[in-house]
Amino acid sequence: MVKDNKVIETMLNHKSIRDYTDQKPSDEIIEKIVRTGQQAPFASQLYSVLLSRKGNIQFGAPLLFTICVDFHKMEKIMEKRGWEAITNDISILLMGIQDAALMSENMVIAGASFGLGSCYLGAAPYRAKKIKEEYNLPDRVFPLVQLVMGYPAEEKPPRPRYPMDFVLFEDEYPELDDNKINEAMKVMDEGYLAQDYYEELNGKIPIKDDEKEDKYTYEDYSWTEHISRKWGQRYPDSERILEQLKECGFDVE
Amino acid sequence: MVKDNKVIETMLNHKSIRDYTDQKPSDEIIEKIVRTGQQAPFASQLYSVLLSRKGNIQFGAPLLFTICVDFHKMEKIMEKRGWEAITNDISILLMGIQDAALMSENMVIAGASFGLGSCYLGAAPYRAKKIKEEYNLPDRVFPLVQLVMGYPAEEKPPRPRYPMDFVLFEDEYPELDDNKINEAMKVMDEGYLAQDYYEELNGKIPIKDDEKEDKYTYEDYSWTEHISRKWGQRYPDSERILEQLKECGFDVE
Repeated sequence: MVKDNKVIETMLNHKSIRDYTDQKPSDEIIEKIVRTGQQAPFASQLYSVLLSRKGNIQFGAPLLFTICVDFHKMEKIMEKRGWEAITNDISILLMGIQDAALMSENMVIAGASFGLGSCYLGAAPYRAKKIKEEYNLPDRVFPLVQLVMGYPAEEKPPRPRYPMDFVLFEDEYPELDDNKINEAMKVMDEGYLAQDYYEELNGKIPIKDDEKEDKYTYEDYSWTEHISRKWGQRYPDSERILEQLKECGFDVE
Repeated sequence: MVKDNKVIETMLNHKSIRDYTDQKPSDEIIEKIVRTGQQAPFASQLYSVLLSRKGNIQFGAPLLFTICVDFHKMEKIMEKRGWEAITNDISILLMGIQDAALMSENMVIAGASFGLGSCYLGAAPYRAKKIKEEYNLPDRVFPLVQLVMGYPAEEKPPRPRYPMDFVLFEDEYPELDDNKINEAMKVMDEGYLAQDYYEELNGKIPIKDDEKEDKYTYEDYSWTEHISRKWGQRYPDSERILEQLKECGFDVE
């Protein structure tokens, strides 16, 4: 039952693709991907998908999707029904971010089923104002994530993930002792190093503190060091993200 | 190429299931579902999955998953690497909610490929403190969504979704004129009414304002009325959700 499952096979084979051929996916395929995305179990369909095929897209991809949290459409519909939205913006975003994320993940999987590769560009929220201008977004639409897509020009193996006992907990969240943490780190770090992942990407995050020496080379710079440098150095205060949200008409303060 | 695509077929066939048989999915299937969920394109694997098979689960389902935003594991890993997380909590949640949502959607699709139905229970964030106690969650873990799963004891058609021209916008977000809004509302409302969706669910949301009369019966109460009553009546202020976040160790104020 677990074998010969095309769905599982497609999903387990997922990896981000950062090099694409010139071949353009057809309109039919694009619409099928978005239509399939739509069948996710949404709370309120609080999403919109922006598409650009204008070129100059990262990694030479033919398609750039921007998946947005969209409360503008909801307000338009409610207005027609004689209702006014009163829910606070944090609760709206809590549902809307999920809706947009479900859409994006479905699009990744649907695309993969047609042989398309993809890669998330995660910085959209911090460039929201710029994206709003580019696509002429109305208020109450927030660009959550960008996704490039196209036919892969590279072959990559799937990246490692945490071990099962670091992820799935029955009945109770366990104490994560040193052994468990070390084991999870080892799986991730050795897995990424074996693939020369950051070296091929030239993806090392610099250490901002001038007094600290960067002792790592691509021989030992791996996943847990990489994410530590992200969460240990980026966006210490919320000013920037709050401003971007505000520019898009969401007030969470 | 678009035909005979098992992945697309499985995803387009998705609908929430609210009645389950007694049959228990095997450990092998459960682990395969979670493992497949893990292959989503995560930023930082900021997720954990709690499982309960204790029974008393909604709709008679044998499995209850609670998918959490988990920054606790990240902090443990960073500590081992000599780093301290400095990123603001809004930015953490913005990524973590996406990570947990990707995981949950992958689990839905992976489950479906094994013949399992599922249904999201969306209220988890508002019951976060209670769930924290139930599963003994450490700080910095926030239960985002619950998902019941099992073998379906009902056959349902997929629910309608917005028309493509209300969802996919190329290059520019268009002016949504009355025609477009009315058409989208019509597709949703007529689609749900044709399935007697809310009547079978007995799912009407009452009007809170005593002075307003509820003119709708299940003959004409449909999707846009339902969601208008949600967003037009629920959680006017953010106090409750902020308190739940705070109980779980996230401070977004």
